[in-house]
Amino acid sequence: MEIAIISIGNEVLKGHTSNSNYTFLARQSTLMGNHVKRGYIVSDDPGEISWAIGEAMSHASLIITTGGLGPTYDDMTLESIAKALNLSLVKNDAALEMLRKRMIPRKIPLTPERMKMAELPEGSEPIFNPVGSAPGVLIRHSGRQILCLPGVPQEMEAIFNSVKERYQNPDLHYYEESLEFPGTMEGEMAPLIKEEMKKFGDRLYIKSHPLSGSASGYSVMLEISSYNKDAKEAERLVREELELFRKRFGKNIQ
Amino acid sequence: MEIAIISIGNEVLKGHTSNSNYTFLARQSTLMGNHVKRGYIVSDDPGEISWAIGEAMSHASLIITTGGLGPTYDDMTLESIAKALNLSLVKNDAALEMLRKRMIPRKIPLTPERMKMAELPEGSEPIFNPVGSAPGVLIRHSGRQILCLPGVPQEMEAIFNSVKERYQNPDLHYYEESLEFPGTMEGEMAPLIKEEMKKFGDRLYIKSHPLSGSASGYSVMLEISSYNKDAKEAERLVREELELFRKRFGKNIQ
Repeated sequence: MEIAIISIGNEVLKGHTSNSNYTFLARQSTLMGNHVKRGYIVSDDPGEISWAIGEAMSHASLIITTGGLGPTYDDMTLESIAKALNLSLVKNDAALEMLRKRMIPRKIPLTPERMKMAELPEGSEPIFNPVGSAPGVLIRHSGRQILCLPGVPQEMEAIFNSVKERYQNPDLHYYEESLEFPGTMEGEMAPLIKEEMKKFGDRLYIKSHPLSGSASGYSVMLEISSYNKDAKEAERLVREELELFRKRFGKNIQ
Repeated sequence: MEIAIISIGNEVLKGHTSNSNYTFLARQSTLMGNHVKRGYIVSDDPGEISWAIGEAMSHASLIITTGGLGPTYDDMTLESIAKALNLSLVKNDAALEMLRKRMIPRKIPLTPERMKMAELPEGSEPIFNPVGSAPGVLIRHSGRQILCLPGVPQEMEAIFNSVKERYQNPDLHYYEESLEFPGTMEGEMAPLIKEEMKKFGDRLYIKSHPLSGSASGYSVMLEISSYNKDAKEAERLVREELELFRKRFGKNIQ
């Protein structure tokens, strides 16, 4: 499954808040055998949100958004998506029930601002938020799915975890290992990486990350990963490759 | 100045590494009176990099990229940008001198892989990397600037800090304060936020972030910011607004 992730919110866009939601979702999606194709960071602006949705729908079958589902004036994700897809916003009874379930025992009044969290694009599936108010929202449109999650990390993770089984790729498994090579420079490994990547094509991915710029303490983190229909085969290939690099460059590994 | 930030690299795209570079650059750009318009996260793929560059050039006057400047086969940022802008890659003598300056005292051989770091799009300005090998690269094209920085955070920050004065907006100052309101729910603040934002238009930005989903411990972080030609005026407005919210909702502030 090709996935696009859209981070919505001025606090992330302006660097006031780190984009940990992106990292979580991209990692989970990858580990479930999917390909994360692109990430977008946009403001709480209907035009910007619509642009990102349209762009993402041109190449991804699952689009995950975070942010903009709350009760305030600048929570505009659902409204903007509805507009982009030419859908009406309608009161969703299941979503309203979810809000009541959270708010009534806590004596939180269901004001017009809060009712907004139950106004969903027509045909949406609300997903219960076990740790906050705003439900997650799944929109199916033109053969794509748009999964809208809140921006508060605990809420985003709880909702995502409650539906993530749906997005496990049954036909493609991902395996990955990393190993640090102290005293090795990235450039030394470059020719072997190139050779091995060429040999295995799509099945193998090798990436080196220099860990330090200091000349005396340089070190490379090598990340080797594989997608395969056969989970064991992915693991075997990664381990075999890691062994090859360890033999060649691992003289300083403890 | 309208700014776009492009994060290049599979490790960030797949969520293996957090995108702290984005947060740093977006924050710095904002504090210098600029508007960060969009962020993009793309893979180490020439087509993807070219797409992001073309997209960003359609709306930003400064485009900052991170990642893909190193010596390995998948460091393809400069090559991809050159292609997107129809420029040749040429050996840049100043960049080569920077590489020599880093490598000769450290007895690091200048292999063909490492020489690649001095092949820049024609007309580029290399920027010395004081903590690593790959120089930063500034490309001027069609009235826009593209500032290419390495992906290693220490290197990225050091290079950015050495040139950031150029991007200080002399005509627009940014001021921001945040305050936590314990025991307040986002929905309670929503009407006043809406009212104040409407009153001041472009000059004032107010954003509420719920800090916890737990009903007993809920709390809101309020962020108030202002851009103004007059730095003192921006500060005055933000403080006045914060005081208004504190009077109305600050009963639990210690």
